[in-house]
Amino acid sequence: MFYIQKRLEISASHFLKLDYESKCTNLHGHNWIINVFCKSEILNQNGMVTDFSIIKELIHKKIDHQNLNEIFDFNPTAENIAFWICQNIPNCYKVEVQESEGNVAIYEI
Amino acid sequence: MFYIQKRLEISASHFLKLDYESKCTNLHGHNWIINVFCKSEILNQNGMVTDFSIIKELIHKKIDHQNLNEIFDFNPTAENIAFWICQNIPNCYKVEVQESEGNVAIYEI
Amino acid sequence: MFYIQKRLEISASHFLKLDYESKCTNLHGHNWIINVFCKSEILNQNGMVTDFSIIKELIHKKIDHQNLNEIFDFNPTAENIAFWICQNIPNCYKVEVQESEGNVAIYEI
Repeated sequence: MFYIQKRLEISASHFLKLDYESKCTNLHGHNWIINVFCKSEILNQNGMVTDFSIIKELIHKKIDHQNLNEIFDFNPTAENIAFWICQNIPNCYKVEVQESEGNVAIYEI
Repeated sequence: MFYIQKRLEISASHFLKLDYESKCTNLHGHNWIINVFCKSEILNQNGMVTDFSIIKELIHKKIDHQNLNEIFDFNPTAENIAFWICQNIPNCYKVEVQESEGNVAIYEI
Repeated sequence: MFYIQKRLEISASHFLKLDYESKCTNLHGHNWIINVFCKSEILNQNGMVTDFSIIKELIHKKIDHQNLNEIFDFNPTAENIAFWICQNIPNCYKVEVQESEGNVAIYEI
């Protein structure tokens, strides 16, 4: 099995729709650290699992320096962002989204 | 599967009731580093495994800057503290409690 | 399951009896980094897997600032030291012995 890991950082704002009181319901922002994990039993015709630049382009173009509530039609929790990234990157099986030091969400297929 | 990890630090004092001589039977304190791990196959209605702030609130409100012997009715070893945290946080399956650099206790379901 | 991890550092000298030429057959010393892992399904009457201080005492008393060839009746390789520690600590299932940066031996039951 072949694996790649891509780590990148984005800045974005969001607020959460919650059924209880929380300061997370106010618009605020983070420097998100995102770790993308892909795997494949065979390499593609370019000798890769997934090109690092494809991962960067998808994530940077879509969510860097954006208001995530305007981008997504789901509640932009770290969990949901991890799931969205995993669904949209070829061969991806796991995504870690660190919202702030000490707060990490992970989706794994 | 969705996962979250929450890392936090608290200051608290404790002494241990032991059936042998040890300096741990004297009241003393630590800066405890606590890592909480939760998982869930489906997200709750807020799009989360467990809100980071619920974890922080439970741990900070209950044990930060406290004398653990006054808070708990069990012997406040790092093992027992890890177990207590795990029992009290929704979707929690593992807790690491670092008492000092080099001394770590873990409870995992 | 409850787990504990204890990390400690000792200084000790040793030489190895080998059936080939090696500079390790000369008396020399290391700062050994030792990681001890214990586990137990139930805690003892003191609420612990194994007291951190018992681990420290055993290892420090027996091998810190010692010539290991005088202490042990076996060839004091990192592997044999890891095995000896594991045999002598209650509930221990794994020991890592780092002889120098990059050189680690591990015994696991």
